[in-house]
Amino acid sequence: MLGKTPERLENIAPFYVMSLLATAKEMEAAGQDVIHLEVGEPDFRTPDAIVAAGIEAMQQGRMGYTPTNGILELREAIAAFYQTTLGVSVDPARIFITPGASGALQLAMLACLDTDEALLLTEPGYPCNRHIAQAMGIDTQLCELDEETAYLPSVSQLETAATEQTGALLLASPGNPTGSVIPDQLAQDMSALCNRRQWHFIMDEIYSGLVYDGAAAKTILSIHPNAWVVQSFSKYFQMTGWRLGWLIVPPGYESAVSKLAQNLYLSAPTIAQYAAVRAFQPDVLALLETRKSVLETRRDFLVSGLDAIGFRVVAAPDGAFYVYADVSKYTNDSLAFCQELLESTAVAVAPGLDFGGANAATTVRFAYTQGQDRIKEALYRMEKFVQARPI
Amino acid sequence: MLGKTPERLENIAPFYVMSLLATAKEMEAAGQDVIHLEVGEPDFRTPDAIVAAGIEAMQQGRMGYTPTNGILELREAIAAFYQTTLGVSVDPARIFITPGASGALQLAMLACLDTDEALLLTEPGYPCNRHIAQAMGIDTQLCELDEETAYLPSVSQLETAATEQTGALLLASPGNPTGSVIPDQLAQDMSALCNRRQWHFIMDEIYSGLVYDGAAAKTILSIHPNAWVVQSFSKYFQMTGWRLGWLIVPPGYESAVSKLAQNLYLSAPTIAQYAAVRAFQPDVLALLETRKSVLETRRDFLVSGLDAIGFRVVAAPDGAFYVYADVSKYTNDSLAFCQELLESTAVAVAPGLDFGGANAATTVRFAYTQGQDRIKEALYRMEKFVQARPI
Repeated sequence: MLGKTPERLENIAPFYVMSLLATAKEMEAAGQDVIHLEVGEPDFRTPDAIVAAGIEAMQQGRMGYTPTNGILELREAIAAFYQTTLGVSVDPARIFITPGASGALQLAMLACLDTDEALLLTEPGYPCNRHIAQAMGIDTQLCELDEETAYLPSVSQLETAATEQTGALLLASPGNPTGSVIPDQLAQDMSALCNRRQWHFIMDEIYSGLVYDGAAAKTILSIHPNAWVVQSFSKYFQMTGWRLGWLIVPPGYESAVSKLAQNLYLSAPTIAQYAAVRAFQPDVLALLETRKSVLETRRDFLVSGLDAIGFRVVAAPDGAFYVYADVSKYTNDSLAFCQELLESTAVAVAPGLDFGGANAATTVRFAYTQGQDRIKEALYRMEKFVQARPI
Repeated sequence: MLGKTPERLENIAPFYVMSLLATAKEMEAAGQDVIHLEVGEPDFRTPDAIVAAGIEAMQQGRMGYTPTNGILELREAIAAFYQTTLGVSVDPARIFITPGASGALQLAMLACLDTDEALLLTEPGYPCNRHIAQAMGIDTQLCELDEETAYLPSVSQLETAATEQTGALLLASPGNPTGSVIPDQLAQDMSALCNRRQWHFIMDEIYSGLVYDGAAAKTILSIHPNAWVVQSFSKYFQMTGWRLGWLIVPPGYESAVSKLAQNLYLSAPTIAQYAAVRAFQPDVLALLETRKSVLETRRDFLVSGLDAIGFRVVAAPDGAFYVYADVSKYTNDSLAFCQELLESTAVAVAPGLDFGGANAATTVRFAYTQGQDRIKEALYRMEKFVQARPI
């Protein structure tokens, strides 16, 4: 009806970090040097070889619609990558190239959940996941995780949060905002739980290439072959603005998902698809591994620096480029704290409030998406900020 | 639940033209010369100046996320285009750059309809529109249009199809599959109807730049300032594979739509946004007008050719690049007819069945997206086909 905001939108919380970004922009316009540790976008540029492949595609006139599931060349390159890097065979017919991981998530949710079924998610978590579901009229069930278990879920926690209505479980590994990786044994327990309860298992693996401490990249497919895997070229492959991701669907769901994709978006961006093929060549993969080690160094530096100023890292920052820290020593209002930190020190971080969960008001997320010099400067400013602040 | 296709997908009819495309591909692989008059993608390439702007953006490293509503430069270029070409003032803050018109449609439907409200559409029509709604759990109401009124809606037809549940009316001008433009008086009647019934008015204007016979491009905004306008860079601007469109929202809906867009897709493809800015320069617009006149010549040629072989054009092919024709003289099964036509003559056209409505089984859609020589050859083949066929 005219003039009335639909209920489905009222249930979607705003991104609090957006109001911080607006403040940050004003400060920058006024000449201040804002350090951005709030945004999930690394400072690296898309590798030159990928860019060159994009330019070549344009010069060759490859700018029309592609098949709905994406160009075969790219789906085969992804399948080969799973085979060689992750040790899993995936039929390219099960791979759908999507407009970002967002497109993949929409497809997965709509293709596996019936209208009377609910999606089970964990909190803290990436807010878009539950918001996408809510916007599309899919009921969500939130399982609150605890600091004591480093914000990793247990079978009993999930069983408690679930009902007969539950149709699918969505997890992320590495997680956002925590960066925590789900250990193999836990993944096996989750797989068994999904099988026992007849749930679909959707795994967000958009950060799976970014795991540290010598850990190898993994996919849930090696444990749960029928999982729905949501992936992205944004994070590991550093192609954020190209808006490209992929979805791996369980055998038997190819035609249903194809029908859905045809209707929802026709096809993913064409130039990005041709460019992304180049991402799987050894020279690009070597560059990406080098950049990963840069991120790992930054993480170590940030984690120890945060510890020193009393921002307690409460999850295992195994991967992605986030550190989730407890700031209860200083505040019980994470949004106000972030706002004050920004205004006093020009350091932008994301409030726990955006990610939900019991400790949302006493946590913040730091993204190590800036160079180490910038992180060092941010730590210095934050140290002065907390020293001047009554506990 | 595992192993069960959700109801929401079962209600979505397949694209019948997809099975024809599969046959066409096999025929081409076997060396046959298939003439494609089934696809809504012109044979023109994206204008060189737009491509060059895309390459320049890549060389300048513009490949990160953009603001959710799109880069200001592009929103301002669109606003200026509305002012100079369409004589309508639109605040750039009301313009959202979207991943294709599909993204714009999703935003519009979700932002204006409550969960207990329905979307009113007309048939025949572009099937994705109703399928997107159905996939997202939005009820649809279909108003069947008649050949006698050239498949244009009347107020009384819409009132009959509507109920108390109706929350929005979606129309397209020019339409697909008909190519018909909604005349000004009718648009005013529709506007008054929406106001009287307190419905949102969503207008699909993705073909609005492609109108012939000296007609000027129009927007419903000049009649109904609170309309939701769905637009695309695919058709008039010939940027199909770039996946870029825009949505104009009524004043007051900016923040709700922004929240939705943040969650559904974050931002539209970046390179495409920078490239599209170039599309509004006079040299590109002049080229697009030249290409439009090429399409008009093709249309005239196709319409008279179809008439000569007894494929009766039943709507007013005022715009877009489609002709909707009655083939009841030859069949009462449009899908079988198209399949047979393809297999016998290697001419691919879209069955009416894909677009719905009472005459879906006795109509076909021809797209004049190929050069006139190809259209001539197609007409020649089809003439022989119908001559050899018992009526």
